[in-house]
Formats: sequence, structure tokens, C-alpha cells
Amino acid sequence: MIKVGINGYGTIGKRVAYAVSLQRDMTVAGIVKSSPDFMSRIASRNFRIFVPDKEKVKLFQEAGIKTEGTVDDLMGDSDVVVDATPEGMGRKNKQLYEKFHVKAIFQGGEDHNTAQASFNAYSNYNESWGKDFVRVVSCNTTGLARTLYPLSSEIGIESVNATLVRRGTDPNDHKKGPMNAIEPSLKIPSHHAPDLKTVLSIGEVNTVAMKVPTTLMHVHSVQAVLKREVKAEDVLSSFSSYKRILPVSGKDGVYSTAQIMEMAKERSLNRSDLYEIAVWKESVSVKGRVASYIQAVHQESDVIPENIDAIRSMFQLLERDKSVSTTDETMGIGRKVY
Amino acid sequence: MIKVGINGYGTIGKRVAYAVSLQRDMTVAGIVKSSPDFMSRIASRNFRIFVPDKEKVKLFQEAGIKTEGTVDDLMGDSDVVVDATPEGMGRKNKQLYEKFHVKAIFQGGEDHNTAQASFNAYSNYNESWGKDFVRVVSCNTTGLARTLYPLSSEIGIESVNATLVRRGTDPNDHKKGPMNAIEPSLKIPSHHAPDLKTVLSIGEVNTVAMKVPTTLMHVHSVQAVLKREVKAEDVLSSFSSYKRILPVSGKDGVYSTAQIMEMAKERSLNRSDLYEIAVWKESVSVKGRVASYIQAVHQESDVIPENIDAIRSMFQLLERDKSVSTTDETMGIGRKVY
Repeated sequence: MIKVGINGYGTIGKRVAYAVSLQRDMTVAGIVKSSPDFMSRIASRNFRIFVPDKEKVKLFQEAGIKTEGTVDDLMGDSDVVVDATPEGMGRKNKQLYEKFHVKAIFQGGEDHNTAQASFNAYSNYNESWGKDFVRVVSCNTTGLARTLYPLSSEIGIESVNATLVRRGTDPNDHKKGPMNAIEPSLKIPSHHAPDLKTVLSIGEVNTVAMKVPTTLMHVHSVQAVLKREVKAEDVLSSFSSYKRILPVSGKDGVYSTAQIMEMAKERSLNRSDLYEIAVWKESVSVKGRVASYIQAVHQESDVIPENIDAIRSMFQLLERDKSVSTTDETMGIGRKVY
Repeated sequence: MIKVGINGYGTIGKRVAYAVSLQRDMTVAGIVKSSPDFMSRIASRNFRIFVPDKEKVKLFQEAGIKTEGTVDDLMGDSDVVVDATPEGMGRKNKQLYEKFHVKAIFQGGEDHNTAQASFNAYSNYNESWGKDFVRVVSCNTTGLARTLYPLSSEIGIESVNATLVRRGTDPNDHKKGPMNAIEPSLKIPSHHAPDLKTVLSIGEVNTVAMKVPTTLMHVHSVQAVLKREVKAEDVLSSFSSYKRILPVSGKDGVYSTAQIMEMAKERSLNRSDLYEIAVWKESVSVKGRVASYIQAVHQESDVIPENIDAIRSMFQLLERDKSVSTTDETMGIGRKVY
């Protein structure tokens, strides 16, 4: 039974904690929270709470929230820490993990070289096998790796061009924008192109990213130059054996990210999350060797199953396919929506 | 002096009327309005107002707005009509124009085959030379033609792939969405790809389009496979002699469509419009023969100069470059912003 500490209980941390709690081969040792807010109160019903330092212990006491000690205490109780702290903090926290000899998983906000390997369950599970420091790539890169891996392994990819239309901020945020603007990343390729290459061996990749005023999901327009000519059905069929890809259709009234999220609410997995990458069936087209499709990424949750699988790879618990299917089954991934 | 009737006084119609009024070789014969709203009152200060039928005359009278007759009367006074009625109505109106033997310009919402030629000033001015029925392509297609024409004529283009992130609706609208969703066009390529080919002879074109919750501008992520290897500077330099392309930069604080529109307000051309296509300088990159860049399109106004030039081509008034420079000068296009 692997003991998992969760450092940071925001969008990703709280979801990883829940997902770990669903597994039979791992358990949540505790979570780290730094302010005694409503989320701490909710978390305290299910998880042991640790705080960054002794001063915070008093703060939580005053708020009437029980704590179990500091982050150092949690280290002693953990085999691995999932670091879900804000972007850039993971690198600093690494010293702590090294000091306590615990393994750690970082999220996509950290640099690739913070860890020994970047991780996507489908595309490079084995590269993290037995490793101490692993990084799960970002929600966008995970989305690209998920759908490009089947194409890459079954058909072969020469090059990829993708435009990533990113949600402005997450639904729980009331500060960030844009409110009424489209904000491109002026660096081309955006950081997603090199990031994708850390988990998937393919040729030339170009990515262009821009933020838009919505909170629900990212949407990707993907073009992949394949190694041979195939039909649109072949592309769809290459996706079909991968449960973390969900085909959706305008014919069923799924016209936008709004309906995809509504669908996820009806299925009602934890927090109405959609762990799968949604691909619009009718958007899949092939012209010559160029396959084109549109997919939607639930930024809050698509990386959660990858965090679970990464733990199994790092502790050499299960082979890829067995880990993926275990995670999928416990989390409800691939469960019929309609 | 060409007498121009304007049928429809919405986003495009009112701007074309203003632009015509700036020219020395054409004049506004009158405009057609169908409801006596605030826009009719404003228009009546500058233009003669005609209504669709006799019943409407009374309606306008009751509202205290003077009318000059019906659309049939305007036909008698016009050499050409700019049809800026809602999408799909232009085709129906064509019978009227034929009956009165007036030339007509349709907008991008109509099918290509409604007219004898589709029009973009840079890319195919001469195809409308002396024609009776011409269609100015949509704001998005105009944006693509504007920046691809210089690349096509100076370097050569083999194929184009573009993702069009479209504003959800225009600023004056309070009904349409999306409010918090990304809505892709599930047809790939979107209609923009064949539309672009009606005005620019290039090879394979793929376009993917999606609507997002903003009203300001469209943003395009464009990738063009060129016929030879060039540098990013060469791409920028090919744009530089075209005044309807405006280079902007994040270095000057122009990070999104919000700042581009703010900049246009500071320049204060009519209605704070931006007739030029804005291209982010730092987004221009070349890898091998693939040029990539990001541009923003002011959907309300980029087609306005094209309507003026189309009139000149249809009446064989001026050669392309002379018409374009006359339009640019009168409308303030290319005027220094900063």
C-alpha cells in the first residue's frame, strides 16, 4: 500500500487526493493546506491536514480546523508526494522531498528537467518506471498526447500542427481574464510543442496558443501529417480502443464545450469531471496524408488519471495497460455517457 | 460620379455609406432602413432614407422620420447598390437589381455564385472589372486574403492551414452567444477554405473555425507552406508595402484584441474602426518552408475599403493600385497609430 502525500489542495491536488482514495494499492497519507478556508473545512472531513509551518498550526486551531502537523511530518508518513502547488513552487519543494527521501510527482507547470521523466500514461508510461521524480505534463499537452499517441502508434505521424484555444481561467477563479478579448501567446511555437516531445516521440511539432474568455475547457484544432494515407474512419477507429478518448457529435446536440460539460454533469462522476478528451466525430477529416480534428480538454481533470498511473510506474506496481485499466475502472473513465 | 444605394444599414451598410461619402468619384444615393429605430434617426441626419415598401412609409412618418420613398425609388436613383442585408437575403434581392438594371455588390454571407466574381482588392481586383454583380468576401476571408496575397505573390504558397477563432457576436448585439463556451464549426474545412479560393489562387487550403465569447475581433492562427525557404524578416517585409496590414507588438503592450481595439480608439478613425489586419510581429516565425503567424481581424470594418474598391473595379474607374491608394488615403488606412 503506497502512502501518498498531497502537497497543495487546489484544482489538481484535491482531485488527485480523491482519485488516490479510490485505489486499492495506494492511500492518502495527508494533504497540505496553507489557509483555513472553506476548502480546508471540506477536506478535513476526509483527509488528514498538514500545514506548511508551525505558525500555521495556530491559525488553523483558531479556525477550529484540526491539523496533524507540518509538511515535514507528512513527509515522514509518505512514500511519494504529489506536488500540486502553484507553478514554479515544485522546483523549490524538490529539496524537501530529497531531504526526506520521498519520491515526488510534479505537475505540468514545472520544467521538464525538474524531474527525471515527463509522463503520459499512453505514450511513455515506461520511462517513469522505478523513477523518483516524475512530472505529469499539463492538461493541454496531456490532451495532445492522448489523441496523437494512437495515431502515432497505429498509423505513424510525420509532423503535427495544433492551435490551442485555451480557457481564460478555471471556474473557481474570480480574478483572471480575459473578459472580452482573445490573447495569443506571441511565442511560436508555444511551450506545448516542446512539452509534447517530452512524452511522445514524433517529428516536427508546431503549436499556437491563445486564451479566450471562457472557463469550461480548452479546444484544440489539430492537424497531423500521417506517414501513410488513411481514411477518416481509420483515424476514429484508432481512437476507439482508448477509453481516455471520448467521441462526441453535433448530431447528438453536442455543439460546444457547454454541452460537453453538461453531459459530464449528467454522468456525474466526481465533481462532474470529464477525465476523457472529447473528440468531435464529424470534425475528423483526412485530405491526402493530413488528418484534421477538433478536441476538447477538461483542464481541471484530464491529468488526474495520469497522476495515479505515474505513481504505479514509479513504484513498479503494474504494467502500463493493467495500471490504465485499473485507474479507468475505479474512476469511471470510459463509462457510458449516452 | 457613381450613385451608390445602400440596401441595409446594419454593421456593414452604415460603414459603407460613410466610406462612400468620403470619396470624390461616388456619392450615396440613399439608404434603405426597415424600422424607425435610433439608427434611422441618426442616419437621417446624413442620408436620404428609403423603406422596403409603402406600409413602412407610414410607420416612419408616425415616428417623425422623413423618408424619400421605397426601395424601388432608390433603384431609379442608383448606379449600383451595396447589398448589406442579412445573410441569404442578397440572393433574393438580386431579382430587384436585375429588374432595375443596377449593378450590385453582395457581402460575404451570400454564396459565391450569387455574383459573377468574388472580390478582394489585393488579390483579384481585376476579376470584377466591368462586372455587374460582385461579392465582397467575408471579414475572415478578407483577413486571410490580405496577408496571404503578399506571401503568395512575393514568395509563393504551396498550401495553407488556418485556425480561425471567431468573436461570438458583434458589440451591438445583446442576443447571441456563446457566453461561456467554445463552439467549433464541425465541418472541416470550414467554409472559409473554399471561400478564400474564390479570391486567391493558391493550392490546398484547410481552415478550422470556432466561436468564442468575445465581441471585439477574430484571431487567426495561420500556417503557410511556402514555395521556398525564407526568414521571418522576409515574411514581415512582404507585408510591409501593404497598408491594409498593420504590424503590432507585445513589446508595445499589445497583448490581445483588447489593446488592438484600444489603439484604434486612440487613432479615432470613423467609429474607432480598424480597417487594417493586425499581425503580431513576434508571432511571425518560419521553420523550413512553413511560415506561421497570428493576426486579428476587426470583423465590423475590414471589408469596408473592399466595398469601395469593388465599385471602382465594376465601373472601371481606376486601376487596382490607384483605387486602393485613393480608398486608403480618404479613409485614413495606414495612418500612423504610434
